[in-house]
Amino acid sequence: MAKIPTKIYLTEEELPRAWYNLRAFMKEKHEPFLNPATLKPCTADDLRPIFCDGLIEQELDQTTPYIEIPEGIREFYNMVRPSPLTRAYYLERELKTPAEIYYKFEGNNTSGSHKLNSAVAQAYYAKEQGITRLTTETGAGQWGTALAMAAAFYHLDLTVYMVKVSARQKPYRRAVMETYGAKVIPSPSDTTEAGRKILAEFPETGGSLGCAISEAVEVAAAAPDCRYVLGSVLDHVLLHQSVIGLEAKLAMDKFGIVPDVVIGCAGGGSNLGGLIAPFMGERLQGKNDIRFVAVEPASCPSLTRGRYAYDFGDTGKTTPLMRMYTLGCGFMPSPNHAGGLRYHGMSPTLSKLYHDGYLEAVSVEQTKVFEAAVRFARCEGILPAPESAHAIRAAMDEALRCRESGEKKVILFGLTGTGYFDLTAYTAYHEGKMSDYVPTDEDLKRGFDSLPDIPQNREARA
Amino acid sequence: MAKIPTKIYLTEEELPRAWYNLRAFMKEKHEPFLNPATLKPCTADDLRPIFCDGLIEQELDQTTPYIEIPEGIREFYNMVRPSPLTRAYYLERELKTPAEIYYKFEGNNTSGSHKLNSAVAQAYYAKEQGITRLTTETGAGQWGTALAMAAAFYHLDLTVYMVKVSARQKPYRRAVMETYGAKVIPSPSDTTEAGRKILAEFPETGGSLGCAISEAVEVAAAAPDCRYVLGSVLDHVLLHQSVIGLEAKLAMDKFGIVPDVVIGCAGGGSNLGGLIAPFMGERLQGKNDIRFVAVEPASCPSLTRGRYAYDFGDTGKTTPLMRMYTLGCGFMPSPNHAGGLRYHGMSPTLSKLYHDGYLEAVSVEQTKVFEAAVRFARCEGILPAPESAHAIRAAMDEALRCRESGEKKVILFGLTGTGYFDLTAYTAYHEGKMSDYVPTDEDLKRGFDSLPDIPQNREARA
Repeated sequence: MAKIPTKIYLTEEELPRAWYNLRAFMKEKHEPFLNPATLKPCTADDLRPIFCDGLIEQELDQTTPYIEIPEGIREFYNMVRPSPLTRAYYLERELKTPAEIYYKFEGNNTSGSHKLNSAVAQAYYAKEQGITRLTTETGAGQWGTALAMAAAFYHLDLTVYMVKVSARQKPYRRAVMETYGAKVIPSPSDTTEAGRKILAEFPETGGSLGCAISEAVEVAAAAPDCRYVLGSVLDHVLLHQSVIGLEAKLAMDKFGIVPDVVIGCAGGGSNLGGLIAPFMGERLQGKNDIRFVAVEPASCPSLTRGRYAYDFGDTGKTTPLMRMYTLGCGFMPSPNHAGGLRYHGMSPTLSKLYHDGYLEAVSVEQTKVFEAAVRFARCEGILPAPESAHAIRAAMDEALRCRESGEKKVILFGLTGTGYFDLTAYTAYHEGKMSDYVPTDEDLKRGFDSLPDIPQNREARA
Repeated sequence: MAKIPTKIYLTEEELPRAWYNLRAFMKEKHEPFLNPATLKPCTADDLRPIFCDGLIEQELDQTTPYIEIPEGIREFYNMVRPSPLTRAYYLERELKTPAEIYYKFEGNNTSGSHKLNSAVAQAYYAKEQGITRLTTETGAGQWGTALAMAAAFYHLDLTVYMVKVSARQKPYRRAVMETYGAKVIPSPSDTTEAGRKILAEFPETGGSLGCAISEAVEVAAAAPDCRYVLGSVLDHVLLHQSVIGLEAKLAMDKFGIVPDVVIGCAGGGSNLGGLIAPFMGERLQGKNDIRFVAVEPASCPSLTRGRYAYDFGDTGKTTPLMRMYTLGCGFMPSPNHAGGLRYHGMSPTLSKLYHDGYLEAVSVEQTKVFEAAVRFARCEGILPAPESAHAIRAAMDEALRCRESGEKKVILFGLTGTGYFDLTAYTAYHEGKMSDYVPTDEDLKRGFDSLPDIPQNREARA
């Protein structure tokens, strides 16, 4: 066997030409979205005022295993991809572990994360449909930056509602989006009904993704040439992100590497869903026995402490209802939490896989996440995004267990992005000012009380 | 001929195993360094208190064409390299030019620039020699970050003197260096004799690379286990940076691409010297007819408006004398200049090539540089460092001339790094607050008056 190189880059010809639709390989699909007014399954027509047609088609397609990537999107992927699959030789040496550690690094682009994979697809389908304006929300700023880049490439107007506390912590994120021509509005704002309502109730709030989504959706729904786009949670987003897993698997196959465990951080689930897609698809067909691990912050533990219920995607309770693991759309994460992954819910597909026992989940506290981030940065060179460092933490812990047991496990994790815009958080860590807030049972109860009071939620609300 | 891919990545096996020593191919070498006390050529012993032995050997070697890259350095290069050679298809489309544009992008690492190529080599040789502490200066912050990464990898202590105005403009740069364990001191500081002297004379100064160098050299010279390292100007730095040109040439050779013109930004000259090395080496042997263009800021125009004279490398007048194009070691660039490339002098090797007519030079004003940066970012995706954007400006201008003339020139430029830590400058540009300061003849005269008053400078000081 040839020595495995530190980094494996696929050539342009090897890049995937079709996305991998994981749902097509699931015997049991997740429950359909419900129209909150009728409690009946959503139709394409229900979604049309908000989402682009091409994306609705993908969202509702649970059966086509491979969906072709249009030429106009592959052109953009050629610009920003492939991302390297890296063997973490230096981290292995640092940890003195017999485990082999690999990571798929999605941070080598200006948005600094994997978000670009879906941003470009969503902008492309909007353009195809003759849409001229997009709205979205952003938390840590990665999604907003990614969409700003995509909107600039396809010459679309873009308004980004940015969670207020992030806008404050990350002024440079805003400057990047503006460089790419986007308009950035800290959320909640007084520019929307939803924003004004939240401000009236919580004038001091640092905002949340849920609030920002409400604002962005409201604006899009009111204008026929405008659509809303979302950076995570939904199935079409996971579909686009499957390029991560497809590239990773192709690179590993070339060198005969088979992972024992695949680890990813999980906020809304897009990175994890994309990374695991082809591996999980084979697992569901009985072709492998890989373990899959979602890592979430202890401060926003939707899988590990949430409930499997129908919930809104936003705080303003305007979106369709999705059955997912959720802390309740009224859950407000601590403003001191710096590590991203603040969303109250989790991708319905990942929720279903977790519920059915195919996916594990762990939660980690912030200080330990940053500890892992700094150790990783010093030996592997890359300064990780706090989000990504959740996966690093779990991968390191797995590798350290291998040191104890002597097992030569093969670990693959997703390094979703870089922390260049998160240095306020790193400085807080260096100064010992990191918050390790974990919600109390009462905090969680307040969130669960916000779950829709519908027959389907009787058990979950109990 | 196969379609040229958007990005060409070399494999790990293809990466260079030896650096390219351009001086070995120059029939006339640049003048030797002079000891300022004796005005005699510097010996290795003169340099030993300040620089590491391995680096002195490289600095003084004008004849060995290829110098092997030690295994311990190639290990690090495997982690952070190769960098992609990118065909700028989208920029070509945007400019509607018949020219083919390529760029070698060195920004895909946490330091955000090419500086890492030499930082790791210098840290490695220090470690080999048993040195435990390093000092250096940083302006824009790229070099300091690169050295912090390298020092962390080899477990060396590092103190960085950071030009005060940059430390103020770029707090996140400081945070990255600290994450990698470096100590950062804004310069001029009261921790050194040189710093105190400059502060006494100019209490409000924003500092300069020249000041910061004086401070770092003073500290290193006083401690036997400590050495000073420099990120540009010197020949051993250009030697390490030759990996840029070697990789670029190898990638181009694979696809039969021959550049008509090679363009790079030039501050101290390390990126440009590295990028052009193997191409210029062949030019000097009569094997090609490539044009080479250095691009410098109009605010710090060492080649285009400087004098070819013996000068100190630092403001404190402590280093050996080098014959180079210089504005005088007393020249202070405008604190409003955001675009890096603030050094008063230019690599002696590049100065010699310029003097002998092998290298051209142009200077560009800041607003035009940022205009090019934003246009490039929106179509090629990458947010460039202001330094790099000088080369983008010149490459765009060349491509636009091709649009007029219809010539199908092949343009290669160096995209040295990313602008993620330069967003204060981008914001200033968006807000129309960019300074286009250009030094007056009187400003320059003040600088030239600081040139050493030695017989060799009689003409240059006239």
